[in-house]
Amino acid sequence: MSGGSEPPRRGPAANAELALLLEVAGTPKPGNVDRHRDLVDLRFEQFLAGAVGARPGLERAAAGAPVGEAFETAVAGMSEQSGGNTQFGCLLLLVPLVRAVAAGDLSPSGVRDVCEATTVADAAGFYRAFEHVDVAVADPPEGMDALDVRRGADAVPALRERETTLFDVLSASAEPVDDAGTPGDANAREWVEGFRRTFRAAEAIVADDGPLVDRAARAFLDLLAEADDTLVRTQHGAEAAAEVRERAAEVESLADAEAWAAELVDRGVNPGTTADLTAAALFVALERGVTV
Amino acid sequence: MSGGSEPPRRGPAANAELALLLEVAGTPKPGNVDRHRDLVDLRFEQFLAGAVGARPGLERAAAGAPVGEAFETAVAGMSEQSGGNTQFGCLLLLVPLVRAVAAGDLSPSGVRDVCEATTVADAAGFYRAFEHVDVAVADPPEGMDALDVRRGADAVPALRERETTLFDVLSASAEPVDDAGTPGDANAREWVEGFRRTFRAAEAIVADDGPLVDRAARAFLDLLAEADDTLVRTQHGAEAAAEVRERAAEVESLADAEAWAAELVDRGVNPGTTADLTAAALFVALERGVTV
Repeated sequence: MSGGSEPPRRGPAANAELALLLEVAGTPKPGNVDRHRDLVDLRFEQFLAGAVGARPGLERAAAGAPVGEAFETAVAGMSEQSGGNTQFGCLLLLVPLVRAVAAGDLSPSGVRDVCEATTVADAAGFYRAFEHVDVAVADPPEGMDALDVRRGADAVPALRERETTLFDVLSASAEPVDDAGTPGDANAREWVEGFRRTFRAAEAIVADDGPLVDRAARAFLDLLAEADDTLVRTQHGAEAAAEVRERAAEVESLADAEAWAAELVDRGVNPGTTADLTAAALFVALERGVTV
Repeated sequence: MSGGSEPPRRGPAANAELALLLEVAGTPKPGNVDRHRDLVDLRFEQFLAGAVGARPGLERAAAGAPVGEAFETAVAGMSEQSGGNTQFGCLLLLVPLVRAVAAGDLSPSGVRDVCEATTVADAAGFYRAFEHVDVAVADPPEGMDALDVRRGADAVPALRERETTLFDVLSASAEPVDDAGTPGDANAREWVEGFRRTFRAAEAIVADDGPLVDRAARAFLDLLAEADDTLVRTQHGAEAAAEVRERAAEVESLADAEAWAAELVDRGVNPGTTADLTAAALFVALERGVTV
């Protein structure tokens, strides 16, 4: 090594891991684990271990490995802590974003290309990832029982028979969940829509001022005000999700959100999908050169 | 990948990075950045970025690279954040510990073997590491001006001429700093003494109960009560270091240490060397199987 040379910039896998850490450090993030709050059965340090454990899978994505394989590896590593699911949804967003960097085009169309190019083998990796950790999910769309993600690896033969790619799986999850047009899973919609909300939130983080963890908390609150949180809807119903979204829209500052943060933790209302989007936006912001 | 297989356990580089993260998350750690406190010019998220950035150097150590090269790489990566020196001292302890794991013997004699086997090239890597970041250090021992670490790479010819290994450098720093026998640098003493305090603190962490970050904070307070902190002595003098040690010995619980933590931060008294030892002890405890 030459003395005094500039260190290499953080690669995309390192930035993805750092995005996971910055996300959980951002406070207040009402209802979520953050720098100042644990949940009853999920603690801050379990997110630290989850992020560290995910790194090898993220490195595989950065090296160009298939999305499903990189994702399963990341989830397996993330699960090596006693808290259960810490960052499954974050990784579902981060892995294709890291792959887009590896392909030289971190943009809505670049990541959409990565997602559309996924295969049946990628879908199998995604299903196998559910074997490593319990994930809170809604019932599968109609006609998709054989492909219920809760079946894990048992669903792989059905995937192969139907030639279902990972993009197909997530497209189905992104569909409206009822005749009223209630949107489907917010993470799946990012896959289908070229990470529209992720890139918009990343722009806001880059344009914002102050410590990055404060920007992360503001981005979280803005995303929460923008759309119903999928995890809140899955766990507490549509009315609770709408209430959280409306309350988030009233928040005017981080200080203003402090009391509400404690209230949501007490009620067990956890807008985890919005935290996933925040981590993805932090990753894009880091790749755009925002400094820590 | 096979479905549902057990994930590989975290390797030593991942455990070393996690130890850095758990150390900074432990609270209260009076005078240091922790989950609840930033310093004026050094923030929590800069420690997160420092830990993430150090990983490639830690991976090199785990793969058996020379100590000096692995250390310089880790420090270069750690420095890719805007806060300056976050974990230089931690890495000086972690790199030989990771190498000891790689050599199959994480014990006082195993790590002492790693340290004693260091070469002049390792010393050169150590000096080059000072080019990446400003580190608060004391004046060099008498007759060692040519080897003042603040000279960075400029000291390398003198190292070569005198055939000074990294173990020689740290042995000199470990020597008493005056005729009264005031102990030398605490991290250097770990190198010379087979990481005596590190292994003892690790045993205490393993035997302790409760969340690992609370155990980390208790280990920090016990280490602080045990000996003067080198960084406090360098920055504020021997009297301040003795006062901190004596006050730490009076602490009876984490709650008891909260007010003192705020006071030390306000006074700018930062027992950073004790934090280094805490990170090293957390690493050994993780390698011994303590769970997060």
